[in-house]
Amino acid sequence: MQRIKCIIAYDGSQFSGYQIQPNKRTVQGELEKALMKLHKGEMTKVYASGRTDAGVHAKGQVIHFDSALSIPAERWAVALNSLLPDEIAIFEVEQVEPSFHARFDVEAKEYRYFVYTGKLRDPFQRNFAYHYPYPLNLQAMQEASECLIGTHDFTSFCSAKTEVEDRIREIREIEIVETDGRLMFRFVGNGFLYNMVRIMVGTLLQVGSGDISPQEIPAILEKKDRTYAGKTAPPQGLYLWQVYYEKKL
Amino acid sequence: MQRIKCIIAYDGSQFSGYQIQPNKRTVQGELEKALMKLHKGEMTKVYASGRTDAGVHAKGQVIHFDSALSIPAERWAVALNSLLPDEIAIFEVEQVEPSFHARFDVEAKEYRYFVYTGKLRDPFQRNFAYHYPYPLNLQAMQEASECLIGTHDFTSFCSAKTEVEDRIREIREIEIVETDGRLMFRFVGNGFLYNMVRIMVGTLLQVGSGDISPQEIPAILEKKDRTYAGKTAPPQGLYLWQVYYEKKL
Repeated sequence: MQRIKCIIAYDGSQFSGYQIQPNKRTVQGELEKALMKLHKGEMTKVYASGRTDAGVHAKGQVIHFDSALSIPAERWAVALNSLLPDEIAIFEVEQVEPSFHARFDVEAKEYRYFVYTGKLRDPFQRNFAYHYPYPLNLQAMQEASECLIGTHDFTSFCSAKTEVEDRIREIREIEIVETDGRLMFRFVGNGFLYNMVRIMVGTLLQVGSGDISPQEIPAILEKKDRTYAGKTAPPQGLYLWQVYYEKKL
Repeated sequence: MQRIKCIIAYDGSQFSGYQIQPNKRTVQGELEKALMKLHKGEMTKVYASGRTDAGVHAKGQVIHFDSALSIPAERWAVALNSLLPDEIAIFEVEQVEPSFHARFDVEAKEYRYFVYTGKLRDPFQRNFAYHYPYPLNLQAMQEASECLIGTHDFTSFCSAKTEVEDRIREIREIEIVETDGRLMFRFVGNGFLYNMVRIMVGTLLQVGSGDISPQEIPAILEKKDRTYAGKTAPPQGLYLWQVYYEKKL
C-alpha cells in the first residue's frame, strides 16, 4: 500500500460542493469515480484537507488516498487527469508516509476571496468573483480586518448551523488589496469554521460601505452570536488557495 | 422609432452560438426574449455585426434594434441587463441615426485568441483559452503571421462550407504576444470569413510546432483550398474583441 498525496485545483461552479452526496455531482464523487476506474472497480476513499461548499473553488486543495497500484508519483497525475472532468486538475502528486493525513495534519490554510467592483457586470467573472459595484472604504476595511487577526472565539463569524464546539481559531494574516478592478481578500489561519471566510468578507464589505464601523468588530466577536456579524458573501468569490502542513508561517 | 446601438459582452460557453436557432439557447434568442418582455410581447429583431459560433465569446459585439419605447440611452443598459442572463452584459448603449446598421456599416473587426501553454490543464481556463501544452517557436509564428497580413484571397483559411463567393479580405494587423502563461493572438481586419481566425490560429500553432514552415504560408494562400492550411483551433479561445465603424486604423 502506498499513501498518495495530491494537490488539486477545481472550478467549483458546476459542483454541489466538495463532499460526496447521493445523486449530486461533487468533487469527491468525481475523484473516487476516477480512482475506481484505475483500481478495476475497487473503491478507494479520498480524504481532503476539508470540504468546500457548492460554487466554491480550489487552487490548492490537498487530498490523500491509499493504493496498492505501483504507479510512480509522476505518472499518477497523468493517469488521474485523463479520467477526471476538465474542471478538476491534479497538479502535484507525492508519495507520503502512511501516517500523513490530509485533514488531521493541516497546520494552516489560506483562502482568497475575489470581489469584482466594476459598475457593470462582467460575464466572464460571474462564477469567479462576487460582483459588488458599490463604493468601498478600503482603509476602514483594513482597520476592521486587523481586529479579526489573532486568536478569537469566532462563533459570531460562523454559520449558526456549525456543530463544532470549539470555535476558537487563530487568524494569522488578513490582506486586502486592489488588483485590476478586483479586490482580493487573503486569509491565513490555523483553521476556519463553516462559512467563516464568507461571513468575514460579507462583514468587511459592510464595513467598507459604512454599515458597520471598524470599532464594532471587537464587540461583534464578544457577542459570540452569528446575528451580530454581517452577511455571508456568496460562494463564487471564494478559493481554497493553499494548505500548509509544516509550520512555514 | 429610435435606432439603438449596443456594445455587448458574453461568455459563449453555454450558448449554441450567437444566431437564433429553434430549440437552442443562443445569444440572439436571449436578447430578443428580453426585448419582447420590454415591449409587452411585441417582437423586436436584433441585428449584430456578425455571428459567433458555439463556445466563442465576445468582449465587444455590436448589435442594433429599433424601438418605439422612449427610454433614454443610459436607462436601456439597466433595463436590458435586468432581463438578460448573467452571461450577457450590455455595457454601452447609444441612440444612433436610423441609417446605422450593425452589420453593413462595419469598417473593421478585432478578434483575439488565447492559448494557455502551461503543462498541466487549468480548470479555470477550460472555457476561456485553448490548452496547447507543447513547445512553440514564437519567432516562426510571427514570421508566418506577416505573410497573412495584407489583402489576400483567404479561401484556404476558411471553412470549406463557406458560401460567400468573395473571399478576399484585408488583414491589417496580427500580433502574437506572451502574457502570463498565455499566448494572445490579435487580428484586425476589414472582415473575416467563416472559421478564418480559428484556422489562422490553428495553422500558426502548427508553424510554432514545426509542422509547417513560415515560408509555406504564401503557397497555402495561393492554393485557395482549405485542405492545405492547418487545423481549426477550438472555439473556446476566441473572442470577438471590438467592432470598428469609423476608419480609426
